[in-house]
Amino acid sequence: MLIVMHHSAPADQIEAVRRAVEQMGLRAEPIPGSERTAIGVLGNQGYVDDTSIRHLPGIREIIHVSKPYKMVSRDFHPASTVVEVGGVSVGEGHPPVIIAGPCSIESEEQMVEAALLVKGAGAQILRGGAFKPRTGPHSFQGLGKEGLKYLRRAGDEAGMPVITEVMRIGQLDDVCRHADILQIGARNMQNFDLLKEAGKTGHPVLLKRGMSATLEEFLAAAEYILAEGNSRVILCERGVRTFERATRNTLDLSVVPLIKEMSHLPIIVDPSHATGKRSLVPVMAKAALVAGTHGLMIEVHPAPEKALCDGAQSLAGPGFRALMDEMRSLMSYLGY
Amino acid sequence: MLIVMHHSAPADQIEAVRRAVEQMGLRAEPIPGSERTAIGVLGNQGYVDDTSIRHLPGIREIIHVSKPYKMVSRDFHPASTVVEVGGVSVGEGHPPVIIAGPCSIESEEQMVEAALLVKGAGAQILRGGAFKPRTGPHSFQGLGKEGLKYLRRAGDEAGMPVITEVMRIGQLDDVCRHADILQIGARNMQNFDLLKEAGKTGHPVLLKRGMSATLEEFLAAAEYILAEGNSRVILCERGVRTFERATRNTLDLSVVPLIKEMSHLPIIVDPSHATGKRSLVPVMAKAALVAGTHGLMIEVHPAPEKALCDGAQSLAGPGFRALMDEMRSLMSYLGY
Amino acid sequence: MLIVMHHSAPADQIEAVRRAVEQMGLRAEPIPGSERTAIGVLGNQGYVDDTSIRHLPGIREIIHVSKPYKMVSRDFHPASTVVEVGGVSVGEGHPPVIIAGPCSIESEEQMVEAALLVKGAGAQILRGGAFKPRTGPHSFQGLGKEGLKYLRRAGDEAGMPVITEVMRIGQLDDVCRHADILQIGARNMQNFDLLKEAGKTGHPVLLKRGMSATLEEFLAAAEYILAEGNSRVILCERGVRTFERATRNTLDLSVVPLIKEMSHLPIIVDPSHATGKRSLVPVMAKAALVAGTHGLMIEVHPAPEKALCDGAQSLAGPGFRALMDEMRSLMSYLGY
Amino acid sequence: MLIVMHHSAPADQIEAVRRAVEQMGLRAEPIPGSERTAIGVLGNQGYVDDTSIRHLPGIREIIHVSKPYKMVSRDFHPASTVVEVGGVSVGEGHPPVIIAGPCSIESEEQMVEAALLVKGAGAQILRGGAFKPRTGPHSFQGLGKEGLKYLRRAGDEAGMPVITEVMRIGQLDDVCRHADILQIGARNMQNFDLLKEAGKTGHPVLLKRGMSATLEEFLAAAEYILAEGNSRVILCERGVRTFERATRNTLDLSVVPLIKEMSHLPIIVDPSHATGKRSLVPVMAKAALVAGTHGLMIEVHPAPEKALCDGAQSLAGPGFRALMDEMRSLMSYLGY
Repeated sequence: MLIVMHHSAPADQIEAVRRAVEQMGLRAEPIPGSERTAIGVLGNQGYVDDTSIRHLPGIREIIHVSKPYKMVSRDFHPASTVVEVGGVSVGEGHPPVIIAGPCSIESEEQMVEAALLVKGAGAQILRGGAFKPRTGPHSFQGLGKEGLKYLRRAGDEAGMPVITEVMRIGQLDDVCRHADILQIGARNMQNFDLLKEAGKTGHPVLLKRGMSATLEEFLAAAEYILAEGNSRVILCERGVRTFERATRNTLDLSVVPLIKEMSHLPIIVDPSHATGKRSLVPVMAKAALVAGTHGLMIEVHPAPEKALCDGAQSLAGPGFRALMDEMRSLMSYLGY
Repeated sequence: MLIVMHHSAPADQIEAVRRAVEQMGLRAEPIPGSERTAIGVLGNQGYVDDTSIRHLPGIREIIHVSKPYKMVSRDFHPASTVVEVGGVSVGEGHPPVIIAGPCSIESEEQMVEAALLVKGAGAQILRGGAFKPRTGPHSFQGLGKEGLKYLRRAGDEAGMPVITEVMRIGQLDDVCRHADILQIGARNMQNFDLLKEAGKTGHPVLLKRGMSATLEEFLAAAEYILAEGNSRVILCERGVRTFERATRNTLDLSVVPLIKEMSHLPIIVDPSHATGKRSLVPVMAKAALVAGTHGLMIEVHPAPEKALCDGAQSLAGPGFRALMDEMRSLMSYLGY
Repeated sequence: MLIVMHHSAPADQIEAVRRAVEQMGLRAEPIPGSERTAIGVLGNQGYVDDTSIRHLPGIREIIHVSKPYKMVSRDFHPASTVVEVGGVSVGEGHPPVIIAGPCSIESEEQMVEAALLVKGAGAQILRGGAFKPRTGPHSFQGLGKEGLKYLRRAGDEAGMPVITEVMRIGQLDDVCRHADILQIGARNMQNFDLLKEAGKTGHPVLLKRGMSATLEEFLAAAEYILAEGNSRVILCERGVRTFERATRNTLDLSVVPLIKEMSHLPIIVDPSHATGKRSLVPVMAKAALVAGTHGLMIEVHPAPEKALCDGAQSLAGPGFRALMDEMRSLMSYLGY
Repeated sequence: MLIVMHHSAPADQIEAVRRAVEQMGLRAEPIPGSERTAIGVLGNQGYVDDTSIRHLPGIREIIHVSKPYKMVSRDFHPASTVVEVGGVSVGEGHPPVIIAGPCSIESEEQMVEAALLVKGAGAQILRGGAFKPRTGPHSFQGLGKEGLKYLRRAGDEAGMPVITEVMRIGQLDDVCRHADILQIGARNMQNFDLLKEAGKTGHPVLLKRGMSATLEEFLAAAEYILAEGNSRVILCERGVRTFERATRNTLDLSVVPLIKEMSHLPIIVDPSHATGKRSLVPVMAKAALVAGTHGLMIEVHPAPEKALCDGAQSLAGPGFRALMDEMRSLMSYLGY
């Protein structure tokens, strides 16, 4: 931590800050500059809570060097984490994993059809939402528990592990019983209690980046899960909110290589929610592969024109099969 | 709803869209333009779910005229809602209400001291956090249930209603027992299950705007609470996330008059979280009064230098008393 | 400047950075921490260009403590600057100045009518655009030089100094001849050549904040003008671009008190461009006064329904007169 | 254009709007809905300036269907534009073009060395900045005219066309004399006078997307150049400004396929400015190729540790050669 004093801060203010730091059990090293003094803080183990000093007169700025996470950081865990689930390995050193299926579970028939479709095309994990976060209460909210059963049966039928979103702690038991991976959505990325309880289940968790979450916040959210002893966490970039409205969100592909530098956790990409446009999904999926993603989550619906949710960004069977062919070729080119 | 076709869309695509709209039980009125055709959709009651048509070939854009909320809208409920709680009225036609207290509850003594301080200065409602949403798991997470009791006792001691944040459904019972108003924080603005359950309690709810929530999403989130039969909702602007880092968030004061046009619900402002800087709180609090806010939520700590959370944006006793004096004068000028 | 090394950076990398810093003629002070080493850089006069070291292996982050501006900073010029123009004083210690007039100059009659209208209502400076920056080339681009003459005559008629936007260096002579204040618009805030040449004229300059400019960039842009020996600069907040679309921009009123802390230059507010909605202008204008603005720039048109530009955010005569009455009262309450 | 009336707008307000539209020479078609009336506007050629109606009572919202550009739109010019310069073709149907060189021109030796380096590695166009836009006036501002000559000689030596940024109209003559392509930077994307004058030169123009420009604004800016009769325009995505600070900007790769749908102009990508980090440049460059970019602009410096500008994002010779090898292989895989 570095404490930057105001240009005009007199010696006694600098001294008061120095003493306050030492009362926290840390060392303070004043660094006099030509324009102002800065005070280096030493001896801390990780992030320092600065609340007991921020108020002191003469301080212009406090700069944190340590981050609010540690267990997710590659600094402290250099080896890449690979999450194994139902015979599928997600992470460095393994071919990118394709998670596919409809946005929402609509019926058993639809799910079985979708499962056979995506499995047939080469996807490894089946997705489908039973609990749907919708902006307004008057939209379709998902089939709930009943949907979980359809998802499970469809996964079993096709021989695929399944993933589904969990929106509240009370759903964790049911979702853990029926799904192989818990998904925590962008709107819940900082629902810290849900993160903690998801951590306690020991189940694999796919954590989506919040709509306007910084990388630091994203990794700190994952830290909540790891802090409960569960390191089976897969990160997922799904676009961030910007001023641009031509796409649903702005897909931030550069976080893929960046997260691989900063963290040992696998990182995958969801081009469907990021772009919101079917025509952009295939090209961005392939760009993500080249960016080094450990997997892709793609919305596929046997009949997008009848989808109850997000039909405009869902691929139908032929489009998805064509994309899978292209991706297989690209992966093979990339050496997977 | 207006469906805009591509410049080059042939007649059969336009006709297919028309038919699809009519299969939804709505009327479709093609509006041929010199450059392209648009199709007006008529006969809908409120927001139309467009998923069954968005996929159709030839569509360039679908423009929604209706909004994903209705019960919170002034269009359908012209009279302003006033939320009454513990003898305090929040809303149009009443003097702005001051909610004050520390960011987090640290001990019974601290809370009683804070309560007497803010009550003495003229605040009407006591705030204090027992459950604290923190970016990383290694920061102080609040005293939990024990804190709720301290808050209640402090409120009773000072004769003030109290408000505290609820972070998960499982806390609702305890929080409803001890607090007069439930607060739902920015990070949980789209925790839709929490909104629904908070709605069912019938308890007054203060809903903070999400970090990057549009007004439309903010009002749609409130709609979740009203849809459960609970219209005792107070909205709270607390700054939005932008590229600017000189302040913690960017306080968006223009939403105050705008929400008053669009909705009948009361809207208050939190200048402490918005700015993150003690020196900016008083001036922005007064600007908010002039902008027409129905109340202010201000962080006050008997000893900010010892605060476990957000000390840098908390006012101490003398600063808060001075601000209250200035605000009383300003309110009197404004005719309250 | 603080150079933060990677957790795993070996001693020879740290040593190489130390040596590189000293080759820049500065001192390097390693600060070993428990997790990583940081290196304090001392002896610099202002902002350090870090390009010759950023590439060195082992560096995780470089943190700048000094800012890319100095002459605009209150640290180095504690006394507030007051810009005098045509008998009007803009800055600390003077009543807020009202600049009013139409978005664009449309005819001599319109300008004279507007000038008499705003003068009669109590405004001190007349605005009007002869050169209009428009998103697309097919919109009205302003009357150009001819417009400047109408503006001047209108100002003379009403006995008011006038301000108008300059968009290119080649217009500076004409604009200086006819206008008392040069306005540099948001889109040109980082048109550095225009800033330099405007600085050389010695004419007062009103500099608008760029659409997504940080405070640091805003102040550094002003520094370009001051660096040419011209300190007659007035800063203007006009809203920043965010994800929100309910208003044209998001008015960032908290920069008013913040700029007053950081800089000695006067800061005014443009609520018309910030909100884009006539109904929001009066309330935000008054909020800006309470926030401490040194002035307001307000769009007024004798007949907004016939305005060639921005009619939706322009006040007509009656609305402007009512607002002026309210502002006079508020200023008197505020002690001006 | 669609005019949406307020829920409560009475018939006479609707009628007044209808009449106002017809006075503009357009047709108005009221579309009565169950909740409110909308009025379709027909008969317009392109974007309608709504200023003469926006003010009318009862209007809630005006929705534009036409865009503020037309000549850049694929709707009106379906065939892709290919920009030919010095024997190099940039655009659809041609292999992606690599533009490389240092951020700033520092000496003739440096430029010749850089030119031979990038040419040897396979780049087709040489870049180098003589006029440098810098946030503050105290940073290196470029060598100016002298630099242009070095750039030209280096290009001639290596047999490559050259590109350089032009910051003001007064530089156009010199830049056109020495450079094959004019670059207009992000900060000047809405410097409309510069766009017009650049258009008049007939020289090829590379236009960078503004820091927070929407696609609509980006294309409308290009329209200024085309409107002067110059369609030799290359668009360049270089990252947009968001809340994220882990990268310099957020590279918005999805605009590549999107611009290819919306416009006939070539679109290239600058991963160096977008990410600001050397380690991310190669992976994002390759992702851009897969996203369908028509070219890449990459900063390369013979000795980045001595660069006067942006050394941290510049590749050195070995890194650039390795990247070129990888890109050649990827292009061959992609069928170029």
